[in-house]
Amino acid sequence: MSLLVIGSVAFDDIETPFGRAEKIVGGAGTYIAWAASYFVKNISIVSIVGEDFPQSELDALESRGVDTSGIKIVEGGKSFFWAGKYHLNLNARDTLVTELNVLADFDPVLSPKERESEFVMLGNLTPAIQMSVINQMDKHPKVLALDTMNYWMDSAMDELLDVLSHIDLLIINDEEARQLSGQYSLLKASELILAMGPKYLVIKKGEHGALLFGDDQVFFAPALPLTEVQDPTGAGDTFAGGLMGFLASRDMMNFEVLKQAIICGSAMASFCVEKFGAEALRNLNIDHLQERLDKFTELVNFEAPVL
Amino acid sequence: MSLLVIGSVAFDDIETPFGRAEKIVGGAGTYIAWAASYFVKNISIVSIVGEDFPQSELDALESRGVDTSGIKIVEGGKSFFWAGKYHLNLNARDTLVTELNVLADFDPVLSPKERESEFVMLGNLTPAIQMSVINQMDKHPKVLALDTMNYWMDSAMDELLDVLSHIDLLIINDEEARQLSGQYSLLKASELILAMGPKYLVIKKGEHGALLFGDDQVFFAPALPLTEVQDPTGAGDTFAGGLMGFLASRDMMNFEVLKQAIICGSAMASFCVEKFGAEALRNLNIDHLQERLDKFTELVNFEAPVL
Repeated sequence: MSLLVIGSVAFDDIETPFGRAEKIVGGAGTYIAWAASYFVKNISIVSIVGEDFPQSELDALESRGVDTSGIKIVEGGKSFFWAGKYHLNLNARDTLVTELNVLADFDPVLSPKERESEFVMLGNLTPAIQMSVINQMDKHPKVLALDTMNYWMDSAMDELLDVLSHIDLLIINDEEARQLSGQYSLLKASELILAMGPKYLVIKKGEHGALLFGDDQVFFAPALPLTEVQDPTGAGDTFAGGLMGFLASRDMMNFEVLKQAIICGSAMASFCVEKFGAEALRNLNIDHLQERLDKFTELVNFEAPVL
Repeated sequence: MSLLVIGSVAFDDIETPFGRAEKIVGGAGTYIAWAASYFVKNISIVSIVGEDFPQSELDALESRGVDTSGIKIVEGGKSFFWAGKYHLNLNARDTLVTELNVLADFDPVLSPKERESEFVMLGNLTPAIQMSVINQMDKHPKVLALDTMNYWMDSAMDELLDVLSHIDLLIINDEEARQLSGQYSLLKASELILAMGPKYLVIKKGEHGALLFGDDQVFFAPALPLTEVQDPTGAGDTFAGGLMGFLASRDMMNFEVLKQAIICGSAMASFCVEKFGAEALRNLNIDHLQERLDKFTELVNFEAPVL
């Protein structure tokens, strides 16, 4: 039940219609690790930061049971930085600044312990880095999960297809699924993408929920209607983190467990968007989390209509 | 368990990326009546058409148990005509032609039998016509349900608010709910709209499902992921028809029954969009319908995750 997370740890400047935050800690790896830490304890994160990254942030992750010894700190280097501004309805955003900084030289080398990890979540990175991690594993993990984005479909499709042929679970959004498959219908898209390698496919639809495909079945998980959405940054990574954390806690993956894992991911994402950055993930009460999981059950529960 | 449907019966020209159809029978009243006819038999429709409207179409509705004697045929008149073209992703459309024709003079006069109807579905029409129907009812029906659109919010908001104060159930889409309430969050929007009068609110989100609000509860119904969507025309009215047909068949409305009714509406809408116009609603097999209802149950069914 060990979970290995590979992903960026970074600084973000975020502006939404509801406020702005400067130089807050973000990055896919950060969100994934925080979210997963509510479900499983044996987590390692492999990433890279600059000398500017606060030790207190690493300590906070350690206090959640996340082994941060795999986060390389580059002396004299600057951490990855992203600045973005969201549109009025939060469904679109403009990237204002992307400074790769030390992430440009990220070349993860796994420790012997990390190479034995049973669950692996490869956050959105270049397919070459993702492949390098896969190649370093001692054996194929129980679950090798991957996130990616349109950018790599445009610039490194062959490498991406190679990576996809090795993984068990792909977690992407609807736009990415449409671009990857060339199909608008998500049902058609799922068939083509599953043929590329992954046994299961999760398509995130933001405020419209998520779909799970695999084993010739389809499952739909709703998003919780929320009164206040402050900042969608990291929601997708938080979703993936909750999902993988739950899978690792159950030490298995099949369609039924994945359904529950997606509900857990959706619940974590619903917390994430209620505050700026990863703030909402830092002091989550486990009763509060269970309460929210129950809300999802209520939200879609109905007695089957019989004619 | 009598259902009264008030709505347009018309001709449509439709163009989608998947084909085009000319002068096919459409109109809100048509879709609502066809969809409801699979759940309840005692249906009356009140509408208006021109001399150009084929008697065979009225006969087809009659054969489904729909009393069409309330459809006024205007000698020498032309039926309402709409032409529209859908964008590539089917989520938006341009209206090319709107010819009100005989609908411009629609002034429904209910028969004694119609005035006693227990379930009433007021399709999208001017608030003045909707109010006139409400005023003609012998007493408040068990369920008075209403559809409306942005156009009336822009041009006749006061009359619309008056109508809303009289109804039990409002069925609108997300864009309309946002405009009516001035709130982007559908949860906030629902609170404001329920305060306007209706006891229950259904917000349709097209391919993203539908939400039900009322009794301090929220329910989310998914849309079925489909391989082929040919034409979304009438899907919203078909949804309302299936929903109201189911309510009438159960002779009651509460939150639990409404959940099932929304699933029935969603199932009917899923058939509707698979073919052009109302074609798919004409010869539906009841086993096929039950099978689709079961698919909805499977689609969202999961075992509640316990931490």
